[in-house]
Amino acid sequence: MKHPGFWKILTVATCAALLGCLQAGELQGHVSIVLLGATGDLARKYLWQGLFQLYLDEAGNGYRFSFHGAALMAPTQGQQLIDKTLETLSCPQGMAASHCTELKEQFLQLSQYRQLKTAEDYQALNRDIEAHVQQEGLREAGRIFYFSVPPFAYADIARHINSSGRPSPGAWLRVVLEKPFGHDHGSAQQLATELGSFFQEEEMYRVDHYLGKQAVAQILPFRDQNRKAFDHLWSRHHVERVEIIMKETVDAEGRTSFYEEYGVIRDVLQNHLTEILTLVAMELPHNASDPGATLRHKLQVFRALRGLRRGSAVVGQYQAYSEQVRQELQKPGDFQSLTPTFAGVLVHIDSLRWEGVPFLLVSGKALDERVGYVRVLFRNQAYCVQSEKHWATGQSQCLPRQVIFYIGHGDLGHPAVLVSRNLPRPRLPSDSWKEVGAPPGLHLFGRPLSDFYTYRPVTERDAYSVLISHIFHGRKDSFITTENLLASWRFWTPLLDSLAREAPRHYPGGAESGHLLDFELRGSQLSFAQQQLEQLVPGPGAAPMPSEFRILNATYRESPVVLSWSAELIAKLASDIEAAATRAVQRFGRFHLALSGGSSPVALFQQLALRHFTFPWAHTHLWLVDERCVPPMDPESNFQALQAHLLQHIRVPYFNIHPMPVYRHQRLCAEEDQGAQHYAQEIATQVANSTFDLVLLGMGTDGHTASLFPQSPTGLDGEQLVVLTTSPAEPRQRMSLSLPLINRARRVAVLVIGRMKHEVTMLVSRVGHEPKKWPISGVLPTSGQLVWYMDYEAFLG
Amino acid sequence: MKHPGFWKILTVATCAALLGCLQAGELQGHVSIVLLGATGDLARKYLWQGLFQLYLDEAGNGYRFSFHGAALMAPTQGQQLIDKTLETLSCPQGMAASHCTELKEQFLQLSQYRQLKTAEDYQALNRDIEAHVQQEGLREAGRIFYFSVPPFAYADIARHINSSGRPSPGAWLRVVLEKPFGHDHGSAQQLATELGSFFQEEEMYRVDHYLGKQAVAQILPFRDQNRKAFDHLWSRHHVERVEIIMKETVDAEGRTSFYEEYGVIRDVLQNHLTEILTLVAMELPHNASDPGATLRHKLQVFRALRGLRRGSAVVGQYQAYSEQVRQELQKPGDFQSLTPTFAGVLVHIDSLRWEGVPFLLVSGKALDERVGYVRVLFRNQAYCVQSEKHWATGQSQCLPRQVIFYIGHGDLGHPAVLVSRNLPRPRLPSDSWKEVGAPPGLHLFGRPLSDFYTYRPVTERDAYSVLISHIFHGRKDSFITTENLLASWRFWTPLLDSLAREAPRHYPGGAESGHLLDFELRGSQLSFAQQQLEQLVPGPGAAPMPSEFRILNATYRESPVVLSWSAELIAKLASDIEAAATRAVQRFGRFHLALSGGSSPVALFQQLALRHFTFPWAHTHLWLVDERCVPPMDPESNFQALQAHLLQHIRVPYFNIHPMPVYRHQRLCAEEDQGAQHYAQEIATQVANSTFDLVLLGMGTDGHTASLFPQSPTGLDGEQLVVLTTSPAEPRQRMSLSLPLINRARRVAVLVIGRMKHEVTMLVSRVGHEPKKWPISGVLPTSGQLVWYMDYEAFLG
Repeated sequence: MKHPGFWKILTVATCAALLGCLQAGELQGHVSIVLLGATGDLARKYLWQGLFQLYLDEAGNGYRFSFHGAALMAPTQGQQLIDKTLETLSCPQGMAASHCTELKEQFLQLSQYRQLKTAEDYQALNRDIEAHVQQEGLREAGRIFYFSVPPFAYADIARHINSSGRPSPGAWLRVVLEKPFGHDHGSAQQLATELGSFFQEEEMYRVDHYLGKQAVAQILPFRDQNRKAFDHLWSRHHVERVEIIMKETVDAEGRTSFYEEYGVIRDVLQNHLTEILTLVAMELPHNASDPGATLRHKLQVFRALRGLRRGSAVVGQYQAYSEQVRQELQKPGDFQSLTPTFAGVLVHIDSLRWEGVPFLLVSGKALDERVGYVRVLFRNQAYCVQSEKHWATGQSQCLPRQVIFYIGHGDLGHPAVLVSRNLPRPRLPSDSWKEVGAPPGLHLFGRPLSDFYTYRPVTERDAYSVLISHIFHGRKDSFITTENLLASWRFWTPLLDSLAREAPRHYPGGAESGHLLDFELRGSQLSFAQQQLEQLVPGPGAAPMPSEFRILNATYRESPVVLSWSAELIAKLASDIEAAATRAVQRFGRFHLALSGGSSPVALFQQLALRHFTFPWAHTHLWLVDERCVPPMDPESNFQALQAHLLQHIRVPYFNIHPMPVYRHQRLCAEEDQGAQHYAQEIATQVANSTFDLVLLGMGTDGHTASLFPQSPTGLDGEQLVVLTTSPAEPRQRMSLSLPLINRARRVAVLVIGRMKHEVTMLVSRVGHEPKKWPISGVLPTSGQLVWYMDYEAFLG
Repeated sequence: MKHPGFWKILTVATCAALLGCLQAGELQGHVSIVLLGATGDLARKYLWQGLFQLYLDEAGNGYRFSFHGAALMAPTQGQQLIDKTLETLSCPQGMAASHCTELKEQFLQLSQYRQLKTAEDYQALNRDIEAHVQQEGLREAGRIFYFSVPPFAYADIARHINSSGRPSPGAWLRVVLEKPFGHDHGSAQQLATELGSFFQEEEMYRVDHYLGKQAVAQILPFRDQNRKAFDHLWSRHHVERVEIIMKETVDAEGRTSFYEEYGVIRDVLQNHLTEILTLVAMELPHNASDPGATLRHKLQVFRALRGLRRGSAVVGQYQAYSEQVRQELQKPGDFQSLTPTFAGVLVHIDSLRWEGVPFLLVSGKALDERVGYVRVLFRNQAYCVQSEKHWATGQSQCLPRQVIFYIGHGDLGHPAVLVSRNLPRPRLPSDSWKEVGAPPGLHLFGRPLSDFYTYRPVTERDAYSVLISHIFHGRKDSFITTENLLASWRFWTPLLDSLAREAPRHYPGGAESGHLLDFELRGSQLSFAQQQLEQLVPGPGAAPMPSEFRILNATYRESPVVLSWSAELIAKLASDIEAAATRAVQRFGRFHLALSGGSSPVALFQQLALRHFTFPWAHTHLWLVDERCVPPMDPESNFQALQAHLLQHIRVPYFNIHPMPVYRHQRLCAEEDQGAQHYAQEIATQVANSTFDLVLLGMGTDGHTASLFPQSPTGLDGEQLVVLTTSPAEPRQRMSLSLPLINRARRVAVLVIGRMKHEVTMLVSRVGHEPKKWPISGVLPTSGQLVWYMDYEAFLG
C-alpha cells in the first residue's frame, strides 16, 4: 500500500492548504470508510465528494483513512467506474489547481474498489483492514459503513457487517442508512427491529439529508445564539404561523415506479419537513450542544403533535401523472393513480408554546418554482399612526416581521437566513455566515429583499459533505434515531391510511395551476380555496348547497321531530339549546344543562364552542347524563370528551361544572362510596326541583339511552335520581341519571344521527311504553317537552 | 300667518321635486321645531341646513312644520341673523335653481326668530304654537326642542320646556342634546339626573353626530344585510384586529380653553369612537330594525368591555400645545399642560365572539393626515402555493382581507365602504350606495384601491341632516341613551383618572412625527414602539436596563433570600417554581403546588401563564394556601383570582384543581360543614405524606402569613392540617393551611414585594420563633427548604 512516511508529508501538505490543523502530527488512529453502493447515483453525485471533503477536513487533524468503494460488480469494472467518479471530484473554491490535483491524487491512492457480495468478501475486507492498521502501527479509531443501497439489501449487508465487519475492540462502528425507512409505521417498525438485531442504536446513523442543508442546520444554532432576543417571540403569543415548504418544478417522470408507491407525503413531508418542524418547534435545551438533550426535546415535539385527520390535508396530483404511470408501469388505459404529487398539511402542536399556531407543511412536484424554506411569520402587534407612505423600513413595526431559513433555489438562488429589519438584528457565527446586501428589485415574502438582514454561508457546502462530517464526529443529533423515526411514522400513518382511497385534485402544473392549489385553514381543517373548475359552473342538475336544505318538522312517537342532514341538524339543535339557555337565564338566572357522552354530541359541542358567541355560559351549569366508570383522566371518560371539545373553548366557571363522581376514595363506582347518592344530592341542592332545563340524550342501537340499558334493574323506575348500571359493552360499569329524573326535565332532546341508527329508529317508532325492553321508550317528560333531532340517514336509512 | 290654501300648493310642488311622496295630500299633523341657540356656530353651519333638508324630505309626506329659531338676543337682531343664515341654505344636487329658490322661500316663511329668555317667553311660544295648530285645523303631531347651547344652560331651558313647552296630549316631545355630556362618570351622572327630572328617557335624544356619518350609519345595516356571508367571519376566529381611527391635521389653537379641560379621550374616544366600537362589536339583533334590541345589544358590549388600566393607553401631546395654552389662557411661562392631544387605546371585549381580538381606538390632533375609518382586518387563513408574482387580486386568499367603513377625508375624500375583493361581494342598498371604480394609483390600507369593492353614497349627506331626520322619525337607536352614556363614562373614567398626572409624549406634529407615535401591543398593554429621542442616546449616566440588574443572594432569618427588583424577582421565582415542578414530575410523576391569594401572586400567575411554556401543568395539582369565606364566584375569592390570572391561560386538568371548600350546603365556612376537615382529607388522600412540593406564602404588614393572623387560636400549632381562622380585615372568616402542614412542605417560598412591606420586613428580621405574635416566624420547614423572595423596596425601603 502506501509508503509509511507518506502521512507526514500529507499532513503538512493538507495543513498548508486548509484551516483547522489543530493537532498536526499527533495521530488519532485509523478510520475505514466502506461505501456500499459506491457506483450508484447518490454515491457518484454526492457521497464520494463528501468523503473527499472529509478527507480534506480531517486528514490534517491526525487521522489516517482508507476508503472502500463497494458494490456487487466485478473488481475491474467497479474500479473503473470509481476511478471515473473520482476524477470529477472538485476542490474547495479558491484552491490552486495544482494543489487540488495533488490532493485528489492522494485521495485516489487511499480509495479502492471492493466487490462485497459473499460472506467471504466481508471477511476478506475485515482482514485487509486489520492488516493495514497493524502495518501502519496505529490503533483503529473506527469504521463507517455507508449503505447507499436499496432497503431490501439492508438485512443481508447488516448481517455480514455484524458477523465479520465489526472493528477491533475499543473502536467504533457507524452504519449509515438512507431512506426510505419503511412505508408506514408497521413496515418502519419491522425494518427497525431487523436492523436492531444487528446494530446498537448508537451505531446507526439514519440520514435525512435535509438536516445537512446549511439553512436547516442553522435553525437550532440560530435559536440558541439569539435566545435572549428571539426565544420569547418564538411562541403562540407572537407567531402567526410557520410555513415549511419544499416546492419542485420537476415531475415524477422516469421515477414513477418509486413515486407511485410513496407519493409526496412519504417522500418529503414524513421526513424532511417533519424534521424541520421539530427543529423550529422544540424547546431549546439548556445546553444546545448536548445531542442527547436535542434528541429528547425533538421527541417531546412528536408527543405534543395533535393527531392528523383526513381534514388536516389537501392533496393534489399533476394532470400528466397518471399517463406517465400508465406508460412507465404498463398500466391499462383507464388506470387512474390516487398517489398525491402535492400535499398541504396543517399541523398543530398542543404545547403551551405553540397551541393554536398553524404549522403548514407543503410540498409538491410540477409547481411553478423550485424553492425550499421555513418561514416564521410574526403577528403584527403594532399600530403605526402615520400614513403608510411615511413608513420607514426597519423602523415601522407595522411591516411584516419574519424569520426565514431559506434552504435554497428560488429567486434567491442560495441558502440564506433572512430576518426582517424591524426585528432585532440577529447574531450568526461570522466564520460560517456572512451578511450580504440585497440585489435591487428582488422581492421575497411580500417585501423587497432590502427589508431583511440577509446572511449567506461563507462557503456553500453540500448537505452530504456536512452530514459525512457529522457522522465522522459522532454528532447523532443530525440523524434520525429509531424512536424519532417511529414517532414520525406514528404521526403520519393515520393520515396516509385515510387518504389511501381519496382522489387528489388534479392540477395542470407550473404557473398554469393558478390558484387551484391554494388552500384555507378553517379551525383544524384544510380545504382548497377554490372549487374545482368543473364545479364552478353549476349545470342544471347541480346539487343544492347543504345550507339550502330545509329543516323538516314532523312527529316521531307523538313528539316533534326535527329532520335534516346532520350538519344542519346539529346547527339547529345548538340554536335551540342556546335559545333555551337564554330564556332560562332571563327567567331564573341560570341554565342547567345535562349532556350525554358518545360521539354524536362531539359535533354539537364543537358547534356550540365555535359558533355560539352569545351563549350565556357564565350562567350555565353543566351536568353529565351518564359516565363510564373509568379514572377521571381516562380518554374513555365522557367528561374528558366534554373537556376537550367544549370546556377548553368556552368560559364556564369552575363551580358550574359538575362531573359525575365515578372515582371516589381511589375506587371506581364502589356502591359504598355513594357516588350516585352524592350526585343526586348535588343536583337536589343546586337544581330547583331537580328539574333540568335541558337534558340531551342519545339512542343506542339496542334502544338504550343515557346509560340505561335494556333490562337494567336500576334507573328505569323508582325513586333514585342517579344510579349505577351495567353496560353490555366495555367499560361495563356506568353511572347514569335515572328515567324518573330525566322525565322531570323542562325539555329533553334526543339526538339520533347516522345510518347505523336507522334500524333502531324504525323499531322504536313502533314500540309503546316498554322501558324495560327499550329504555328510550321510557323518555316521557312529565310536564316538559320532548323533541327528537334525527338526521335523514337515521330516519330514512 | 300663511294662507290656508298654501299647503295644498306646497305639497304638489314638493312632490314634483322630491321622491317619496307616499301619501301626498293626507295630512299627518303639525310639527313644531324649536332650535335653541339658533344663531350659534353649529346652527349656522349644520342645523338650519338639516332642518331645511327635513322640510324638503317630509313636507311632501303630509306634515306641516313651523321652525322657531330661538336665542337670548332681541327679536329684530335675531331675525336678521337668522335670515342671513337661511339665505345660504343649499338645495340638493341637481335641483333647478328656480325651484330651489321657490322652496327656500317657502321654508323661510315657515321659519321665524324667537327670543326665549324668560318663563313668559316660553309660555308665549306655547300659546302661539297651540293657536297656530288650531288655526290650521290640524292635530299636533309633536314638538322638537334642539339644544344647541352650552350645557350650563340646559337646566333652565329644560325646566321651562317641562313646565310650559310640552305639546298637547297625544303629541310627542323630543329634546335634542349636544355633547359634552359631562366630564367623567360623576358629572355625567349628575347631568343625567338633572335632565331626568324634567324629561322621560324616551323624550331625550343625545346627539353623537358620528352616528349620523353615512359610513358609520351603514355599519349595522351592512352587518345585517350581509349576515349570511359575513357574520361568521365577524369573530375572534377570523378577525385579526379592528382599528377605529380619527386623525386630524388641525391642532387645538384657538380652542384650548375647551380642549385643556377635555383632551382627546373625552373629545373623541369616549363618544365617537366608543359608539363605533359598539356598532362593530355588538351581537346583531334578530330584527335589525328594532331600535330597542339594538340599544340593548349595545349595552351588552359595554358590559363585556375589559376594564382599562394605565397600560391600556399611550398618550401624546403635540409640541406647540403647551405654548398655545400659555398664550390663550394666560398661564405662566413654565406651565406644562398634561392634556393629551393624541391617544391610542387598546380595548378588549371579553365576549365569546371577541375575546382576544384587539380593538384599537386612535385619535389625535396635528397628525399627518385628516382621515377617519373603521377597519376590520381579517386573519390570513390561507396558504397560496404559487409564487406571489402569480397572485391574482380577488382570487388570492393570501392578500389582506379587510372591510373598511371609511368615514371621510383622507386620500379617498368621500365616505365609502371598502371590501377586499377576496371576500364575498357584499350587498348594499342600491338606492343609497353605489359601486364605484378605483382611480388608478391610489393605494389604501396596503393595497391598490382596485383590490376593493368600493361603494360610496349616491348622495352625500351631512351627519346632522341624517340625524335630524332620525329624530323626526323617532329612531332612538341613532342616539345615546342615558344608560349608554353612563356605561361609556364608567368605562373611560378609570383610565382618565389614572392618566391625570401622566406626562404625555411630545410629538412635533404632521409628518415630522415619524414613528414617534407608533405603538405596540404586548398582551393587554400598549407601549410606544420607539423610545423617546432623548432616551435613544444614553449618556454616561444612563440608567442600566432592568434586565441587567443582578439577582442577589443573601440570607434573611437564616434562610436564603433572593433580592432583586420586583419584575426580575417574579421572573426568578417563576423559574424556580418551574424547576421544582420539573424535578417533582420527573421523580414522582406529579407536582403539588399550594398558592396564596393576595395581589403579589397575581404578577407571578401572569408570568407563569405567559412565559413558561414547558411548565408541566398536566401533572401539576393546584391547592390553595388560604381562602376567604365568600361565595365561590365572589371577586374577593382567592380562587377567582387564580382562575382569572392563571387557570384560564393554561391547561390544568379539572381534577387537578383543588379549591378550598369554603362554601358547602349553601353556607360559608360553617364549622358543622367540616370544610376544613374535608380539605385536609383531600390533601391526605392525594398528596403523599401531606407534603406539598412547594408552598407559596406572602407576609402581611402585621406579620401574618397564609390566613394565620397574630394570636390566632387555631393553625399556629396542633394537629389540624386545615383550619378556620378570623382576619382583622373583611371578609373576616378565612380558611387556611396550618403552620404544621406548611412546615411539612418540601419547599416554602415567601414572596414579599413593595415598600409597604419594608417595616414589617425589618421587624420580622429581628424576631425569634414567636408564631403567636408573628405567625410568619413560625414558618420553619421541618426537613424542607425555606427561601425568601424580596424585592429591593421591601428589603431596603
